[in-house]
Amino acid sequence: MSPKYGFSIDQLMELAGLSVASAIRETYPPETHPRVLVIAGPGNNGGDGLVAARHLTHFGYDVSVCYPKRSPGKALYEGLVTQCETLGVTFVSADALVGGGAAPPPPLRETHDVAVDAMFGFSFAGAPRAPFDALLALLHQRASPPPIVAVDIPSGWDVDDGDVFGDGMRPETLVSLTAPKIGATAFAGAHHFLGGRFVPPRMKEEFGLRAPEYEGAKQCVRIA
Amino acid sequence: MSPKYGFSIDQLMELAGLSVASAIRETYPPETHPRVLVIAGPGNNGGDGLVAARHLTHFGYDVSVCYPKRSPGKALYEGLVTQCETLGVTFVSADALVGGGAAPPPPLRETHDVAVDAMFGFSFAGAPRAPFDALLALLHQRASPPPIVAVDIPSGWDVDDGDVFGDGMRPETLVSLTAPKIGATAFAGAHHFLGGRFVPPRMKEEFGLRAPEYEGAKQCVRIA
Repeated sequence: MSPKYGFSIDQLMELAGLSVASAIRETYPPETHPRVLVIAGPGNNGGDGLVAARHLTHFGYDVSVCYPKRSPGKALYEGLVTQCETLGVTFVSADALVGGGAAPPPPLRETHDVAVDAMFGFSFAGAPRAPFDALLALLHQRASPPPIVAVDIPSGWDVDDGDVFGDGMRPETLVSLTAPKIGATAFAGAHHFLGGRFVPPRMKEEFGLRAPEYEGAKQCVRIA
Repeated sequence: MSPKYGFSIDQLMELAGLSVASAIRETYPPETHPRVLVIAGPGNNGGDGLVAARHLTHFGYDVSVCYPKRSPGKALYEGLVTQCETLGVTFVSADALVGGGAAPPPPLRETHDVAVDAMFGFSFAGAPRAPFDALLALLHQRASPPPIVAVDIPSGWDVDDGDVFGDGMRPETLVSLTAPKIGATAFAGAHHFLGGRFVPPRMKEEFGLRAPEYEGAKQCVRIA
């Protein structure tokens, strides 16, 4: 979002992450889906995931975060980790999830009720490096993962062409931020939300966005 | 809130202002109370008001802001103004409200359906200077103002002793942030909300706070 609208990244990330958490709260109540795993990448998408992890904890979930590639010296991201740690969020290593040790870990669906894919956003290109390749495989449909919530665009999908991996990740829920990306038209999951309730009408016009109406004070709105 | 919890002021102000806007959305729907005036002071309380003004606009209100003492060079506050301007929020001068010109302005209750007092917070002490003295008089019960929503603590009230002005402002709604201040026990209005859903349990224990449970993804909760 352009600086001419006056937002700081802290503000936008806060509202984006809150809308992701709100969509999860609406779709997977903590009574039936108490254990949430957030897999956070190194950039903004991961930051949205860390914010969501904090709000989900406040919403009553038992939240674990896998955040294998941190950006040291970036105050915002270090703060997001501190906020989660203070709340009692459990940080797990990628090895613990994919099985870098002697005993193979149990399938993800046995240890978590929802997995949040906050690895890569719309600016990602190329092939994912370790350990994200292995983490992506964990969310692959062949691995029978728990329901997956993708932040903005499923990681590994092409932002313009949809799922370039063909038989890759199949999220049950997608939370598009500010506007659905072109690649999201390939999304065939059960729940599609729009989040990021901060887009000024002028910007909507500028980009020809058509958005459904949010209800009351809610920070996400169901698209499909 | 202590830096040891890792929050930036941008994040806390965003969530505080959102909770104020959410409480207003719950109490005064835009269908019956479309015109909201936010009176913002020079500090954090005013910043919470500016964030609330932005969210209220997204919630469907016609929002005006009076922000007479700006802090130039402070990126956060300048950004909050830009965000509001971009959304089409109207900025009005204190003179336009209190009548610095030839013709006296109409009573506030004829031009606005809700007035948000975001002038001074819990750290304010002493007597308010111009133009806030005149703006406070506009919200005085003798002036028969529209329903007033006070942010954290009614301006002019003593944070520890309650209303030291005796017959001062009488807000109909109070949104206490993180925890009700001692002075809020003197609040006798119809609606009392708690906002600021970011207090870690450890901090609650540290300060002996007892808070009601928030519902779902809501950012405010009714106390009384």
